[in-house]
Amino acid sequence: MARKAAKKNAFYAQSGGVTAVINASACGVIETARRHKDRIGKVYAGRNGIIGALTEDLIDTGRESAAAIAALRHTPGGAFGSARYKLKGLDENRAEYERLIEVFEAHNIGYFFYNGGNDSQDTAYKVSQLSEKMGYPITCIGVPKTVDNDLPITDNCPGFGSVAKYVAVSIREAAFDVASMAKTSTKIFVMEVMGRHAGWIAAAGGLAAEKAGDAPHVILFPEVVFDQEKFLKRVDQAVKKYGYCAIVVSEGVRNAAGRFLAEAGTKDAFGHTQLGGVAPVIAQLIKDSLGYKYHWAVADYLQRSARHIASKTDVEQAYAVGKAAVQLALKGQNAVMPTIVRKSDKPYRWGIGVAPLADVANVEKKMPREFIARDGFGITEKCRRYLQPLVRGEDYPPYRNGLPQYATLKNTPVPRRLKGRFVLK
Amino acid sequence: MARKAAKKNAFYAQSGGVTAVINASACGVIETARRHKDRIGKVYAGRNGIIGALTEDLIDTGRESAAAIAALRHTPGGAFGSARYKLKGLDENRAEYERLIEVFEAHNIGYFFYNGGNDSQDTAYKVSQLSEKMGYPITCIGVPKTVDNDLPITDNCPGFGSVAKYVAVSIREAAFDVASMAKTSTKIFVMEVMGRHAGWIAAAGGLAAEKAGDAPHVILFPEVVFDQEKFLKRVDQAVKKYGYCAIVVSEGVRNAAGRFLAEAGTKDAFGHTQLGGVAPVIAQLIKDSLGYKYHWAVADYLQRSARHIASKTDVEQAYAVGKAAVQLALKGQNAVMPTIVRKSDKPYRWGIGVAPLADVANVEKKMPREFIARDGFGITEKCRRYLQPLVRGEDYPPYRNGLPQYATLKNTPVPRRLKGRFVLK
Repeated sequence: MARKAAKKNAFYAQSGGVTAVINASACGVIETARRHKDRIGKVYAGRNGIIGALTEDLIDTGRESAAAIAALRHTPGGAFGSARYKLKGLDENRAEYERLIEVFEAHNIGYFFYNGGNDSQDTAYKVSQLSEKMGYPITCIGVPKTVDNDLPITDNCPGFGSVAKYVAVSIREAAFDVASMAKTSTKIFVMEVMGRHAGWIAAAGGLAAEKAGDAPHVILFPEVVFDQEKFLKRVDQAVKKYGYCAIVVSEGVRNAAGRFLAEAGTKDAFGHTQLGGVAPVIAQLIKDSLGYKYHWAVADYLQRSARHIASKTDVEQAYAVGKAAVQLALKGQNAVMPTIVRKSDKPYRWGIGVAPLADVANVEKKMPREFIARDGFGITEKCRRYLQPLVRGEDYPPYRNGLPQYATLKNTPVPRRLKGRFVLK
Repeated sequence: MARKAAKKNAFYAQSGGVTAVINASACGVIETARRHKDRIGKVYAGRNGIIGALTEDLIDTGRESAAAIAALRHTPGGAFGSARYKLKGLDENRAEYERLIEVFEAHNIGYFFYNGGNDSQDTAYKVSQLSEKMGYPITCIGVPKTVDNDLPITDNCPGFGSVAKYVAVSIREAAFDVASMAKTSTKIFVMEVMGRHAGWIAAAGGLAAEKAGDAPHVILFPEVVFDQEKFLKRVDQAVKKYGYCAIVVSEGVRNAAGRFLAEAGTKDAFGHTQLGGVAPVIAQLIKDSLGYKYHWAVADYLQRSARHIASKTDVEQAYAVGKAAVQLALKGQNAVMPTIVRKSDKPYRWGIGVAPLADVANVEKKMPREFIARDGFGITEKCRRYLQPLVRGEDYPPYRNGLPQYATLKNTPVPRRLKGRFVLK
């Protein structure tokens, strides 16, 4: 019986904003755990992330067929539900940690796999301290994920490559459209992309420009203070030289006063400012100053859920970090996160490394200044060399009747074993 | 020598808003003409549509390789440039028609292929009257194109199927994202699509909903007057039942006073209203009334240039109408447009028919009322049966380094033969 008790169940949860490939990581975790049934019992997923653990709302992934789990690899969103919920410090809210231990104990959970970005790796790190600080034996592994590409140590973050590909493909396509309309109609196209704090996603738009004159002609980064005069001059030059101007703008662009442009420009009829969208602000500015007709797009969730145009590299890496997380746990590692290690650019070769959660938690990787062109409106060759392999390869989902077939799991609840209900703060 | 004079050159032009597949029609025209070199000499394309004819700015498509022309089949935008330019009536601006004859004569043009929507078919019709009214022998064939799907007689319009597919895929993907975030964060997602006068594109979003609870939960059509109270009730019901609500809204939605909602809501800091976008207005309305956190997207040009996710049916039909246009001309038909004829729904079978331009010009096909659900917020089974085959099949472009490889032609100008310059009104 000692042998049996030694076989622990695993807990897996998705955290923060989801991506086109976070489920590929889930697939990697679950498929790998299933191959080690001698060591890992059930894999329970938290319904809506860590909240599922706190409220004892667990999903029995063992009820899903092998085909359903395999289909996660090509399904966007978070199949078990995600959450924006950050655990407080052990001293600030000890009740949460006691509750986690209570739930883990009740369900014989000895492995904790937490799939998320900066905040989530912090949570994973805190949970990893349960062994040491509260005497509950748990093996805790972070699984990296974020479209923002801002986790440290890892060369890049699963989720980012697919957004990057979507943005580069979209601005290239829209530019073909604008170029054909420019003679008598639209001359300006502005596409807003995510990235409130860092310009990684905006930079990816730059991949579309392979030779002089190619779109995008201007990229606006959160790292570069918006200089209206210089910007308008640049736009006008592009229109005069190429007939049109295609612009990628990060939602995080700020003016010299440090205010988001998205907030600086617009108010609705009631005086609200939440309407947001920096693309229309930029477009209107150009119209007012230069008189050019414009169109603008805000991709928003479309960019991070666009599994139909996911990067194959990204899908493979997302799966690989899920798989590696389980392997690291089986090797007895704790409080670590698998990383992606770039071994060479050309040909692109990568492998899996490992980083201590203590070094990952709450550290934000900024985009290097040498990735942004000197004039602040484009990317450098160095940046292109970094980004290019991350968007490489297509990994199309299956289609039926013209639409991608994505998995919806049964998400069967695990019967509760605890009587008390936990109230989230 | 009489034999040689009988062999006329052809003029081809793209007109109005471009699509993901208008170049597939160009490909169909040019490849088919090349197979009939005994009857058709050169194919000259108008640079920027009809403007190219008026200003004697012709492109010699004969300078393009077979591979380059073949690549048009998978290239979005208008390869020769399009234009929003409608010829006036023969009596109103006779000079334009005289100029066209002058240019056609100078370049031995006997075939006129005009690729566009309602306005463009009107232009094609006017040009077709040149033979009769001004004694210049020309064979004039319209080639249908419009994402708005509002040309009469033809069962559907090339360009629409690909937008429809993009919209259905995008709302499905975004809904997977929102569903996973809804517990602690975003509960509302609003996606704005094109279609100022008709709800065809918005309706296509409905294809994503295959079973109860599937997104989109609400569609707002230009055909249905916006009823704020009923709408909010419906949104709230969806959130309470499914945890979130995904909405597709047509840019053309109007309130009871007949005003576009996009204009009704927003003003920028300077009092301008052009910022537009109905999605943020709808999102803000929900936030103000129901308090739910939202995200919104405006796809704009992305939807009509998304060749990467084009419908295979659409690509094939776009090519087929281009090919048929040349075949009709060779059969001696004039003042007609090839149409798409639906022969059966299941299995979907279609063929090419023919419609007189006189019956096509300026007639707008509305969406039938029986395509919209009785409550005004969704599509009917009848609508689904109509739309479904149009998005079927994938037709992926080739990729290099993770990005689609689209054709950019040489667009070599034909040497001018006329001395006078024509000034556009």
